[in-house]
Amino acid sequence: MSGSTDLEDVFAYVYERSDEHVETLRRLCRQPSVSALGLGVDETAEMVASEMRRVGGDVRLIPTAGKPVVFAVFQGRGERTLSFYNHYDMQPPEPLELWDSPPFAPEVRDGCLYARGAADNKGNLVARIAAVEAFLKTRGELPLSVKFIVEGEEEIGSPHLAKFAERHAELLRSDGCIWESGGKDPRGRPEVYLGMKGICYVELSASGAKMDLHSAWGTVVSNPAWRLVYALSTLKDRDERILIEGFYDKVREPTERDLEALRRMDFDIDGWREKFGLNQFLNNLSGMDFLVKHFFHPTCTICGIASGYAGIGSKTVLPSQAAAKVDFRLVPDQDPEDVPRLLRNHLDSRGFQDVKVMVSEGEHPARSSLESPVAEVAVSTARRIYGMEPVVYPMMAGSGPMYVLCQKLGIPAASVGVSHADSRAHAPNENIRLDDFVNGIKHIALIMHELSKTRPLEKPSSAG
Amino acid sequence: MSGSTDLEDVFAYVYERSDEHVETLRRLCRQPSVSALGLGVDETAEMVASEMRRVGGDVRLIPTAGKPVVFAVFQGRGERTLSFYNHYDMQPPEPLELWDSPPFAPEVRDGCLYARGAADNKGNLVARIAAVEAFLKTRGELPLSVKFIVEGEEEIGSPHLAKFAERHAELLRSDGCIWESGGKDPRGRPEVYLGMKGICYVELSASGAKMDLHSAWGTVVSNPAWRLVYALSTLKDRDERILIEGFYDKVREPTERDLEALRRMDFDIDGWREKFGLNQFLNNLSGMDFLVKHFFHPTCTICGIASGYAGIGSKTVLPSQAAAKVDFRLVPDQDPEDVPRLLRNHLDSRGFQDVKVMVSEGEHPARSSLESPVAEVAVSTARRIYGMEPVVYPMMAGSGPMYVLCQKLGIPAASVGVSHADSRAHAPNENIRLDDFVNGIKHIALIMHELSKTRPLEKPSSAG
Repeated sequence: MSGSTDLEDVFAYVYERSDEHVETLRRLCRQPSVSALGLGVDETAEMVASEMRRVGGDVRLIPTAGKPVVFAVFQGRGERTLSFYNHYDMQPPEPLELWDSPPFAPEVRDGCLYARGAADNKGNLVARIAAVEAFLKTRGELPLSVKFIVEGEEEIGSPHLAKFAERHAELLRSDGCIWESGGKDPRGRPEVYLGMKGICYVELSASGAKMDLHSAWGTVVSNPAWRLVYALSTLKDRDERILIEGFYDKVREPTERDLEALRRMDFDIDGWREKFGLNQFLNNLSGMDFLVKHFFHPTCTICGIASGYAGIGSKTVLPSQAAAKVDFRLVPDQDPEDVPRLLRNHLDSRGFQDVKVMVSEGEHPARSSLESPVAEVAVSTARRIYGMEPVVYPMMAGSGPMYVLCQKLGIPAASVGVSHADSRAHAPNENIRLDDFVNGIKHIALIMHELSKTRPLEKPSSAG
Repeated sequence: MSGSTDLEDVFAYVYERSDEHVETLRRLCRQPSVSALGLGVDETAEMVASEMRRVGGDVRLIPTAGKPVVFAVFQGRGERTLSFYNHYDMQPPEPLELWDSPPFAPEVRDGCLYARGAADNKGNLVARIAAVEAFLKTRGELPLSVKFIVEGEEEIGSPHLAKFAERHAELLRSDGCIWESGGKDPRGRPEVYLGMKGICYVELSASGAKMDLHSAWGTVVSNPAWRLVYALSTLKDRDERILIEGFYDKVREPTERDLEALRRMDFDIDGWREKFGLNQFLNNLSGMDFLVKHFFHPTCTICGIASGYAGIGSKTVLPSQAAAKVDFRLVPDQDPEDVPRLLRNHLDSRGFQDVKVMVSEGEHPARSSLESPVAEVAVSTARRIYGMEPVVYPMMAGSGPMYVLCQKLGIPAASVGVSHADSRAHAPNENIRLDDFVNGIKHIALIMHELSKTRPLEKPSSAG
C-alpha cells in the first residue's frame, strides 16, 4: 500500500468539521451518565440515539433487564458489515477535588479536552459516528454497512449484555467488530488490541459469634478474620502459583505468533515500573517472562478485604464477620463458570466449609485471530494514519464483554481508539488530545474503506 | 466468722442514705467523660475531686502527660492502708439509637440505673467513696487509711499510668488494692478477680505500588493484601498454636491452686456459647481445657484488617496498602516489650522484611496471690454480704494497668464491683441494679473493716 488512501475528500471533510465534532463530544460529556449511581444514564441513551438519527442511522433502543442498548444500522454498499461496540455510561467522577476543571464541564487546555468520559468512551463513540457522517456527506453512501452496539452498563460489568447478545445474535452479525477503546502507548505508538482476559469476581466471607466480642474471647471463640486469612493463604503460593486444583486445566498457551507479537511489542516495562514507584515487579519478572505472564496468564487478586476495626488507634475487638473480594482474570479457554465450583472444592477439601463464596461477576476471556480481516485492516490502517508501526496486543490484561458480543458469535474483533498514555480513564482529569480525536475519526473512516475491499468471512448462513 | 459483722451502724447509715448515694451517681453520670473524644474529661476530674473533698479527703489532681490522676488520701486508724483503683473516663456512648434512654440522662427503670458509665466505672467509684463516708459519719474515723487513685484514660489504654506509677511509687504504697470493677456472674454469684492478662497491640502493614492500580496488573505487581495474608497466616496455625519463636518461653503454667480455683468456678461455658450464637468453641474446647485456655493462655487475635475496596458490589482494584491490627493477650510472665522483637524476627526469618510492625499499646500481665490478705478478705466478705460462695478468678481474660499500679510495687490486688451479668459495659443500655450498688457500698465497708484487722505485709521500709 502506498501513502495515498483514496479518501482525501472524506479526510478533508473531517478536518473542516472538526470543531463541530468536538462540540458534539463536549455536549455529550456535559451530560453525566454514571451507571454505578444511575445518574443520567437514560438521558444519555436518548442523546446518543438522536445524534445517530441525525446522521441518518436506523436507531432503536433495545431494552434489557438493565439499561437499554442503543442499536443503530447504517446500510452501505456491498456485502461487508462492520460493527462498533461502545458504551454510553461512564465511571463516577470522584474524587472531585483532584480535578483541575469540573468533570462535567468539558474544557480544552493545551490541545486536550478534559471531561469525565472524554476518553472512556464518549470520544471513541463520537469519532465513529463522525467517520460515518463524513462518508455520507462526501460520498452519499458508506462503503459497507455499519452497526453500532452502544450499551449503558459497561462500567458496572455489562451484567445484561450476555443475555442481550444471545437474544439478538442475528442482529449483531458482522464481518468484524471495532471494540470500544484503545489509543497510544507512552511512546506515542498506536495500539491495537485483539483479545481480552475474562474475569470471575467473587466474595469470600466467614462468620464467628453473632456479635463483635471483646478480644479477650480470642482464646476460645473462632475468629472469622483468621478463618479468611487461612483460607486465602491456601489459594496461591508465595511464588504466585494458583493452587486451586483444575484452575489451569483449560489454559491455552500462547502460540508462536502470539509470542512474536509480544516480542515486537517493545513494551516499556521499566517505564511502568517507575510510574508505579516499584523497585521490581513480582518475582523480578522482566522481558518475555514479564510479557507472557502479564498478557497470557490468569491471576488471583485480593481486591479488598475487611474485618473488625480498621480505624485510627486500637480497638480490642474480636470481629464477627470477615470478607474479601477476589478477582480471577482468566485467559482462553478458561470458563468463568468453572471457577466458583473449583474454588468451592478447593476450600472444602482443605477444611474451609465455613468460608462462603458469592459470585458477583463473570466474563469469558476472548481472543481474535491476528490474521482476521478486521485485525489486519486495523493494523495496516493505523500504520498509515499515524505514520508509525502500531503495537499489536494479542490480549489485553483487562476484561470486557468481547466474548459474548464477538467470539461466541464468530465475529473477529480489534480494539483501537483516541486515548493517549496519560488519558486517565477512571481517574481525575480524564482527557483526550484533540489531534488524536481527529486522527481517530480518519482511522475509523479508513478501516471502513479497507474492510469493504476484503473477502467476506465464510458464513454458514450465506453458504446454505 | 459468724453472720455478725460488727458494722450494723455503718450499714444502717448506708441504707438510710442510699437515695443520696444514687443521686451522687446520677450527677456524675450526667457529666460526659469520653476520653476517646476528649469530651468532658477535665470537668469530671474536678467533680470527682470535689466529691472526695466534701467527704473529707486530702485530694490532689496529679498531672500526667495526658489527663490528671485524681489522688486522695483519707487518714485512718492503725498501720494498714487500702488503695482503690478507679477511673473517671468512660467509653463513647455510640450507637446512640440502641439506647432506650439517653446515655447521659440517667434513668431508673425496674430497679436499675441506666447511663453510660453507671457500671464502668462511676458506680464503683461512688460506692467506694460512700463506704468511706459511712465510716466517717458513724464512727468519726476510718479503721485504716485509704488511698484513691482515679485515672482519666483507662478507656484508651492508660497510656500515661506506667510513668505516673514510677514517679509516684511512694505515694501509691498500700497493703492491698481493690481494683476497679467486678460484679455478679450470670448465676448471681459475686465475682472476685485476682489478675489480668497483659496486652501487646500492633499494626502490621504492607505497601505495593504507590497508587491503587487496575487489578489487571495483578499479574506482575506485588499485592500488599496478599503479602499481609501470607504473613498473618504464619503467625498462628489452624489449631491455635502461636508460631512465633520464643513467644511461649516466659509463660508460667497455672499452679495447682489456680487449677483448683478454675475447678470451683463452675463457669457457665454453655451459657456463654449460646449467648454468642456459637455451635462450639474453638477446637471444641470444654471443661477444664476451656478454662485453662481462656484464663491462662496467651492469644494472637486479628482485631481488624483492611485493604482495597470493601464496599458494595465489585471494584477491580489492586490495592496499594494493606494493614491489620493484631492483639496479643499475654499471661504471666510474658513481657509486652518482648513481643515486637520476637514478631520482627519471625517475619524477617520467613521473608517478610517488607511487612512493617507498629506497636500501639502494651501492658504487662499481672497476678495477685490467692492467699494475699486483700484477696482473702475480698472473698470472705463477699461471701458474707451476698450470702453466696463467690467465684474466684485467678486471672481475668481482659487487660488493664494492674501490673504498673500493683504487681510492680508489690501490692496485692483484688477486683470486686457493682455490676451484674447484663450490665452492658461498653455497650448501649449500660446499667447497674440499685440493690447491687447498695450491697457494693456495704461490701467495701466490710473489706475496710476486715483488712484493718490483718497482719501487715512485710515491707522493707518499715523493717529498716
